[in-house]
Amino acid sequence: MPSLSRRATTMPPSPIRKLVPFADAAKAKGRHVYHLNIGQPDIKTPEVFWNAIMNHGREVLEYGPSAGFTSYRKKLVEYYKSYDINVDYENILITTGGSEAIIFTLMTIANHGDEIIVPEPFYTNYNGFAVEAGVKIVPITSSIEEEFQLPPLESIREKITDRTRAVMICNPNNPTGYVYSREEMLALREIAIENDLFLLSDEVYREFTYDGLKHTSVLHMHGLDKQAVMLDSVSKRYSACGARVGCIVTRNQEIIDTALKFGMARLCPPTLEQLGAEAGVDTDAEYFREVLEEYRERRDIMVHLLHEMPGVVAPNPKGAFYLIARLPVDDADKFAQWLLSDFQVDDETVMVAPANGFYSTPGLGQDEVRIAYVLNVEDLKRAMHILAEGLKVYPGKTI
Amino acid sequence: MPSLSRRATTMPPSPIRKLVPFADAAKAKGRHVYHLNIGQPDIKTPEVFWNAIMNHGREVLEYGPSAGFTSYRKKLVEYYKSYDINVDYENILITTGGSEAIIFTLMTIANHGDEIIVPEPFYTNYNGFAVEAGVKIVPITSSIEEEFQLPPLESIREKITDRTRAVMICNPNNPTGYVYSREEMLALREIAIENDLFLLSDEVYREFTYDGLKHTSVLHMHGLDKQAVMLDSVSKRYSACGARVGCIVTRNQEIIDTALKFGMARLCPPTLEQLGAEAGVDTDAEYFREVLEEYRERRDIMVHLLHEMPGVVAPNPKGAFYLIARLPVDDADKFAQWLLSDFQVDDETVMVAPANGFYSTPGLGQDEVRIAYVLNVEDLKRAMHILAEGLKVYPGKTI
Repeated sequence: MPSLSRRATTMPPSPIRKLVPFADAAKAKGRHVYHLNIGQPDIKTPEVFWNAIMNHGREVLEYGPSAGFTSYRKKLVEYYKSYDINVDYENILITTGGSEAIIFTLMTIANHGDEIIVPEPFYTNYNGFAVEAGVKIVPITSSIEEEFQLPPLESIREKITDRTRAVMICNPNNPTGYVYSREEMLALREIAIENDLFLLSDEVYREFTYDGLKHTSVLHMHGLDKQAVMLDSVSKRYSACGARVGCIVTRNQEIIDTALKFGMARLCPPTLEQLGAEAGVDTDAEYFREVLEEYRERRDIMVHLLHEMPGVVAPNPKGAFYLIARLPVDDADKFAQWLLSDFQVDDETVMVAPANGFYSTPGLGQDEVRIAYVLNVEDLKRAMHILAEGLKVYPGKTI
Repeated sequence: MPSLSRRATTMPPSPIRKLVPFADAAKAKGRHVYHLNIGQPDIKTPEVFWNAIMNHGREVLEYGPSAGFTSYRKKLVEYYKSYDINVDYENILITTGGSEAIIFTLMTIANHGDEIIVPEPFYTNYNGFAVEAGVKIVPITSSIEEEFQLPPLESIREKITDRTRAVMICNPNNPTGYVYSREEMLALREIAIENDLFLLSDEVYREFTYDGLKHTSVLHMHGLDKQAVMLDSVSKRYSACGARVGCIVTRNQEIIDTALKFGMARLCPPTLEQLGAEAGVDTDAEYFREVLEEYRERRDIMVHLLHEMPGVVAPNPKGAFYLIARLPVDDADKFAQWLLSDFQVDDETVMVAPANGFYSTPGLGQDEVRIAYVLNVEDLKRAMHILAEGLKVYPGKTI
């Protein structure tokens, strides 16, 4: 048979993919598995979102415009305004999820073989998007000791080559929960301007910041209109991951117009979910207050319980609903697999995501895991108890 | 500002894009425009499809599996069986529309710089997908005089280089309405085997064949299990273009597994529409009988009226709901624009797609247009009347 492409066959699998068979086997044994490994919120999608879909009033499920419904784009202008992000609806291109927003942006700003600088650990699917776009991710390492703050500017500058096209961040960050400060954003702005780079900011967790922290958008930066590109999605905001509705927002109209060509090739984003997303902008403020309070409580409990476990290092996340924890184990891959295969408390166990898959530099994150706090408080306490018990008896424990 | 990528800026726009401002201007003048330029069916989406979406019974619009819902994949096995296509559900990867099925397949089988042979005229969005995948489309020309049948095998053989990875067809064909015969499919099979190539077949118009013609799927071919890849979508079948649900079907499990990596990066296809598509498999046979009868009647009327226009050449399409017509005009681009800007009958006009955008070889299709018969019979008659009147007085007419 003809061989497959190198790009596809060499693409790294998802960090949890190899664990899935072990999770399935555990479940087949009747064991309950607490999933701390995925970013699927358990929060209800707002009623206004559902209602708009239910009242679609259509007989034909037609194509929408390639750029997304104009009414939705105009509604998003209102939404962004409420976060002090001032844009016109022409600055917004609706995409099929935040994933497509990233792929279209990479394809629009970079040629095959170009480089994008990304602080690691980073959302692993960036690897897949980079492979699809033929772009190389050049990591700059942020460390758990520094609570995953932005690495020194010098470490970014020394990675810049004539193939570098952009710096891309995720803010609030998946997988670390870190929220870049205004000072860090200004530093990135400086780097972008001095090196004529694009600054891409994945801001899908905008709503999720704690302790009164204010989120700084890349579109809050002055003098960066041609270079700042924000990537967004309704997945987390409205707990609507299955909707596949995202967008690219930039004041650089050439980027929108060019990305729209890719948009025209794929015709349109899903029609019905755009109706939901448009209505979602009118979600009651109370919904977000409750959701945020729920996540904050979960975070506090989780961090508290993690800190009670001997040898565990876990910076307090300021945003999103993830954290990276260093565990006193030989190898987080093996530990995660062991939890699923060889460990249980009252026939229950937990699944965590080994963090090495979130690093691009080989060897990093070997004793770290990413934990998503997308379980209710009772389940989360139970899952933390199982993790603590597991750490006590895991054969590869290091303390 | 940093410059954009060559791939994006050099990507050809949709062939009707430059006409859109003229159509908008015509409408702004209060003129009614009959759209013969798009493949958006006016047929109602089946009730079972809508009902499944309306009865989703969910509180959280969650991610589905990256490969699509297993229940839907299993249901598709039944659907394909009814077309004598025997596959397992593991042979099916659900995608976000047929568009993503094509992009994932190209990325899976070809590296940057590889070549894909495609008979022209072809669906213009293949250009966009090729640019995204970094693949070069090498056209083999089918001609209106030969009713767009497959060009001689020799013309395919002479285009094969060491970078050629596949031959890709659309069957039934958009934009020509041609349906490849069993003999033509066997010839393509021969080419694929003798040159160790993949054979990709976009079969989204499977349901739409006329005059008792039987559609031959690439998956009907024997001895081609590793090489045959079928690309599909529910858009046309259920008049559900806005659903964005398609699939890749191949018995080459390595292709499915590899494409799934791209699928995992983008997380999942839209959740709700998969429920609709799954239920759609149970659409009453009567629905398709009526739809097909409707399209056949439209085709007959349209072809009859086109053949009454002096100097018009229009092969009778055997499938899909398009045809290519040669018009007695100097330039179809100019004519299409003139229809929108300078012509009307009782304040109505028509919009057609100039066919040069469907050819990859420069200079071809200059006096051809693609017409989609997605209007009801009365509107179609009216649109044909306007076209006929326009041809009589167009300043650039050639007879």
